[in-house]
Amino acid sequence: MAGSIFGKIFRISTWGESHGKGIGVVIDGCPAGLPLKEEDIQVYLNRRKPGQSKYSTPRKEEDAVEILSGVFEGKTTGTPISMVVFNHTQRSSDYGEIANYYRPGHADFTFDAKYGFRDYRGGGRSSGRETTARVAAGAVAAIILKELGITFTTYSKSIGPVEIDYNNFDKNEINQNSFYMPDKVAAEQAGEYVSSMMKQLDSVGGVVECVVSSMPKGIGETVFDKVDANLAKAILSIGAVKGFEMGDGFLVAKENGSYHNDAFYYDDNHQVKKETNHAGGVLGGMTDGSDIVFRAAFKPTPSIASNQHTINKMGENIEVSVRGRHDPIIVPRAVVVVESMAAITLLDLLLENMTATLDGIKGFYKN
Amino acid sequence: MAGSIFGKIFRISTWGESHGKGIGVVIDGCPAGLPLKEEDIQVYLNRRKPGQSKYSTPRKEEDAVEILSGVFEGKTTGTPISMVVFNHTQRSSDYGEIANYYRPGHADFTFDAKYGFRDYRGGGRSSGRETTARVAAGAVAAIILKELGITFTTYSKSIGPVEIDYNNFDKNEINQNSFYMPDKVAAEQAGEYVSSMMKQLDSVGGVVECVVSSMPKGIGETVFDKVDANLAKAILSIGAVKGFEMGDGFLVAKENGSYHNDAFYYDDNHQVKKETNHAGGVLGGMTDGSDIVFRAAFKPTPSIASNQHTINKMGENIEVSVRGRHDPIIVPRAVVVVESMAAITLLDLLLENMTATLDGIKGFYKN
Amino acid sequence: MAGSIFGKIFRISTWGESHGKGIGVVIDGCPAGLPLKEEDIQVYLNRRKPGQSKYSTPRKEEDAVEILSGVFEGKTTGTPISMVVFNHTQRSSDYGEIANYYRPGHADFTFDAKYGFRDYRGGGRSSGRETTARVAAGAVAAIILKELGITFTTYSKSIGPVEIDYNNFDKNEINQNSFYMPDKVAAEQAGEYVSSMMKQLDSVGGVVECVVSSMPKGIGETVFDKVDANLAKAILSIGAVKGFEMGDGFLVAKENGSYHNDAFYYDDNHQVKKETNHAGGVLGGMTDGSDIVFRAAFKPTPSIASNQHTINKMGENIEVSVRGRHDPIIVPRAVVVVESMAAITLLDLLLENMTATLDGIKGFYKN
Amino acid sequence: MAGSIFGKIFRISTWGESHGKGIGVVIDGCPAGLPLKEEDIQVYLNRRKPGQSKYSTPRKEEDAVEILSGVFEGKTTGTPISMVVFNHTQRSSDYGEIANYYRPGHADFTFDAKYGFRDYRGGGRSSGRETTARVAAGAVAAIILKELGITFTTYSKSIGPVEIDYNNFDKNEINQNSFYMPDKVAAEQAGEYVSSMMKQLDSVGGVVECVVSSMPKGIGETVFDKVDANLAKAILSIGAVKGFEMGDGFLVAKENGSYHNDAFYYDDNHQVKKETNHAGGVLGGMTDGSDIVFRAAFKPTPSIASNQHTINKMGENIEVSVRGRHDPIIVPRAVVVVESMAAITLLDLLLENMTATLDGIKGFYKN
Repeated sequence: MAGSIFGKIFRISTWGESHGKGIGVVIDGCPAGLPLKEEDIQVYLNRRKPGQSKYSTPRKEEDAVEILSGVFEGKTTGTPISMVVFNHTQRSSDYGEIANYYRPGHADFTFDAKYGFRDYRGGGRSSGRETTARVAAGAVAAIILKELGITFTTYSKSIGPVEIDYNNFDKNEINQNSFYMPDKVAAEQAGEYVSSMMKQLDSVGGVVECVVSSMPKGIGETVFDKVDANLAKAILSIGAVKGFEMGDGFLVAKENGSYHNDAFYYDDNHQVKKETNHAGGVLGGMTDGSDIVFRAAFKPTPSIASNQHTINKMGENIEVSVRGRHDPIIVPRAVVVVESMAAITLLDLLLENMTATLDGIKGFYKN
Repeated sequence: MAGSIFGKIFRISTWGESHGKGIGVVIDGCPAGLPLKEEDIQVYLNRRKPGQSKYSTPRKEEDAVEILSGVFEGKTTGTPISMVVFNHTQRSSDYGEIANYYRPGHADFTFDAKYGFRDYRGGGRSSGRETTARVAAGAVAAIILKELGITFTTYSKSIGPVEIDYNNFDKNEINQNSFYMPDKVAAEQAGEYVSSMMKQLDSVGGVVECVVSSMPKGIGETVFDKVDANLAKAILSIGAVKGFEMGDGFLVAKENGSYHNDAFYYDDNHQVKKETNHAGGVLGGMTDGSDIVFRAAFKPTPSIASNQHTINKMGENIEVSVRGRHDPIIVPRAVVVVESMAAITLLDLLLENMTATLDGIKGFYKN
Repeated sequence: MAGSIFGKIFRISTWGESHGKGIGVVIDGCPAGLPLKEEDIQVYLNRRKPGQSKYSTPRKEEDAVEILSGVFEGKTTGTPISMVVFNHTQRSSDYGEIANYYRPGHADFTFDAKYGFRDYRGGGRSSGRETTARVAAGAVAAIILKELGITFTTYSKSIGPVEIDYNNFDKNEINQNSFYMPDKVAAEQAGEYVSSMMKQLDSVGGVVECVVSSMPKGIGETVFDKVDANLAKAILSIGAVKGFEMGDGFLVAKENGSYHNDAFYYDDNHQVKKETNHAGGVLGGMTDGSDIVFRAAFKPTPSIASNQHTINKMGENIEVSVRGRHDPIIVPRAVVVVESMAAITLLDLLLENMTATLDGIKGFYKN
Repeated sequence: MAGSIFGKIFRISTWGESHGKGIGVVIDGCPAGLPLKEEDIQVYLNRRKPGQSKYSTPRKEEDAVEILSGVFEGKTTGTPISMVVFNHTQRSSDYGEIANYYRPGHADFTFDAKYGFRDYRGGGRSSGRETTARVAAGAVAAIILKELGITFTTYSKSIGPVEIDYNNFDKNEINQNSFYMPDKVAAEQAGEYVSSMMKQLDSVGGVVECVVSSMPKGIGETVFDKVDANLAKAILSIGAVKGFEMGDGFLVAKENGSYHNDAFYYDDNHQVKKETNHAGGVLGGMTDGSDIVFRAAFKPTPSIASNQHTINKMGENIEVSVRGRHDPIIVPRAVVVVESMAAITLLDLLLENMTATLDGIKGFYKN
């Protein structure tokens, strides 16, 4: 399989299966001189750690990250940063049964179609556990962006049919509830909804929204490597994501130009501002100085304990119920995954942008 | 600017500005032995040609493609295929005025933010005219896919508030109306809606849907180069696209697992089938043998003749009205652009997939 | 065929066959703001133009370059720069004969082995004419490097058995003789040698040497993208090159460490200097501030008029003599090709190096 | 630092420093279905293990490889293969002294010039230990090539002034002497030479030659990704290599076309053969079916115990002698590194070649 490398300058190479020895990532192209220790990364990993609420799998995974290279005396050296989270609680025996049939909504069938066989334990490489490596790398990217003043606000915008009310938006609430929702009331309603679906042995989808503040203007490349294009790839590459939108997103299809176009104006300090931000912070693929706003739609967890039709490898139509310790909803733990992929993507474009003008290059090499 | 190269094995490199000498593309990695002539490509280009209906700019552009290399005695040789559409009707004088202000909804401002200046004539590189090169390359990709039995059905799903009714779906209708809609009634309603908006000097958005049939199973890479991820990048890289979704798309956020999961079954010929296709033809980033179904949301044309607030380079808040020969809606001419980007993306993954297994490689080199 | 794209940030995509419509290149990632006109590039192209001496093919090719995009009001805009040299003197009829046999030393046989057929006219894509595109792109890279104070001295070090004498080294002589040798006496001897080989219907090889001055220190990446590694690929990708060496090159195999190691010292102005430059300006793949010095070995022109054994496609062992207007030696016209590939390679690494440290990034975005 | 990723389809990402926690590599794009166990790779790693003769550092490194992912039930699954060799014998205390000065012939100075500081322990990332990761990945590539019938013969061609005599060439001798020379007499002379240099506290260079047999015809891409170009980059990326040549290499500069051109003929079985192989198995960058033959020139080990001039970071000119457990010659342990890099390079081109023709693609997808 190809395709486990992402990025152009800040490039990550991830590896690992759900029930293998561990999950890891190598970052090639990380700038030197960044203060970095395992604790800094652990903060991000803890946001996706399972077993933290009753709406999450009761599996206990410590997910403790180890840095194996690229850091010396507390700072990145410019050499590749290898990080690993060793697996400790692989109960492979749980999975013997699924070796022989194809779980609906999972990659079991397509894996076999491509390779002829698969590591069936816990979904193998197609497990949600794969995102651990994305978060470890994303943490490094996010920390660098923070050094440049760029910050993220990422949260669940909807859980099943329950949406946040922007009138109740409270940033501080995000880390206070199990769903990472910035609206306490909505979070409570979401809890009730998810509980009722759990009783029905069913699972729930939702939407993650991400707002990036203080990106410099003019970042992104005009044609194929637009900010929006690269973000879309990054986000759709996360398992279970089925949709991506920037700014007004699919609503634009019903808007008119007179409404959609964001009017520019100079504010009192003679700074360029926009009256609205329907565009979500990009014009022609490049950042316009407004907040970057995008959303990802997550499907409901495919592993459900209720009965489903499917097939086995022996050529039979069968009925299955996927037992095990599964999250009833992917969204809350995916919030930090979305943020991580966005951080990696935006940092990469920021780095590339340094080479955009001759004056910038001359200025750099004069110093 | 970087970012005008797309693809890994079948790679395209595009160039050209709206009012420069022409628009072109070089394809690197096109397989040898494909019968190819300019007429084959022209068929695709004609689908995005302006001036074909009253809902399209009255500009006349012949957009005649020339093949400059890579074809010998009627067949591709394996060497790079360079194609160009020379510009003939550049009326640069139209654009002198916009050199000094930033049109809302356009890349004028971000271009200047990035580079300090810009080719302001007709949007320069950020013109919709840039997509000519994508269609020329996409035609080649689509023709190769056709040789492998893979086909596309691409159409407007909605024009402003007017949506097609799947009960009226008629594939043959697509090329019969100005909107490339597969529903004659909807197309007529769309015409009325667009006409009324044109009278108001306003513009309209919409949604393009694409269905890809007969893709082999197992195509796509499991982590970052998922079919959906690569398609999302390809589609969001088209100017004016603000959203992308696979299968049920954003609806999945409100679905439950018991509904969303597509059940597998063996049909009477012992072929693997799915009872539904909520996934849109991919599982874990790899094709599952069903139709690939995705959608793109297009914003309304940013160039509108009604008054808008904006700023000029002299530091003033001003009012403008963008005159000129602009489409009131981007969608109809974008249908073939969406198809082209999808063809390029899927062909590239098909080629990469040839290297997936040792048995496949051995089989190949035994011949 | 893949493989006509080169570079990571400053990327070039070349196309064209010897007897097709033209030869061209698209540069993606060229910084904006560089004053550039066709005349600037023509200067470089003229150095590889045929027909300038009796040791070069009498074919007349104007090789006039046209810029088709990426330049506006005399400056690069940051968008792709498309350049083309149209072919005017294709006498395809000359080549009908070679369609059916394989010229020794040429790519005829390997082309057929790979693709099953080939554009046989003048070597098709494997013609020396392909390097026109490299020189056009290399000219742009070299002009940018010049803006940064980086300069090239490139010349023939040997022509057949005739080597320059460094005691006679005269930089100004390089452009005064047909062989671009920096030693007038050697150039005369080379002329005699080449003339005598021409009389014998034979051809001659040689060595090109390139010295790059004033590169900043620390350019290049430590592992796979070493300056030397990327230069080696660039140079070996030129048809007819069979060897590459940095600094002392193959001589190092017989040297001892006490001799080979270049001792550092601080000069009177407290600048870091080296007592010698056996390394050729790189240590650990990164520039050390000394001149970068490398060499390329060129084989003799494979097209010779004397009789050679070979085979035809009909399964017969035959004898051929390759007639036509061929250079008796590749080296003189290749001097500028070597310089061009070096310029592209070094500029690309200079651009990538801008992202090497957090302090550098912070400094850049503070401005 | 960027540049620790190599390859296009079979891509490797390496990491690790001499005195960090370990050295590792992730292979992305390895085909599924290859039987693979740690012992298979260990065989290759043992060829570069130190401490095996008196001409090698007496450091004991077990260099035991662990596979962390990508292999399930004894076969590669198509997912990334992560391999690590943990460091056990880091005696960092040895290196405190060199933190403050720049060893001649090492990357100490250039590292500081690029990043402002460095991991000085044992050369950090620029240590020869970095090649461990190349060999682990190269072993996998070589094993795949072997499955396709492609084999390597790699050996020391010269050690200092001592060259092998091709009349005495004995393939079986290669693994019988400390220098991996295919000539017993030369190996003995080399031993005497190296011993005498060791007594003088000096070090020795040499040449490695590699012969690749049974590569299919037509592999390699015609322009930038020629077999020779990609090999050159791969080989020059190995620390201490200063020169690369294919076939007759630098000798071609003095050859004439009538001598250099390899004549084709049909042998008695109607197979295409060449009377000679001056080209080293490639024509126009593509394999011609003959053995691929290339050479790499290695400089003498830069760490020598005799006195050398250099500078320290405090601005002083000083004298140093680099003590420690260093190899007096790099070449013998580098033989397998050269082979590894060649295997990775050739496999990658073999994979890419599968997509070269429409007929090949159609044939593949028909199965």
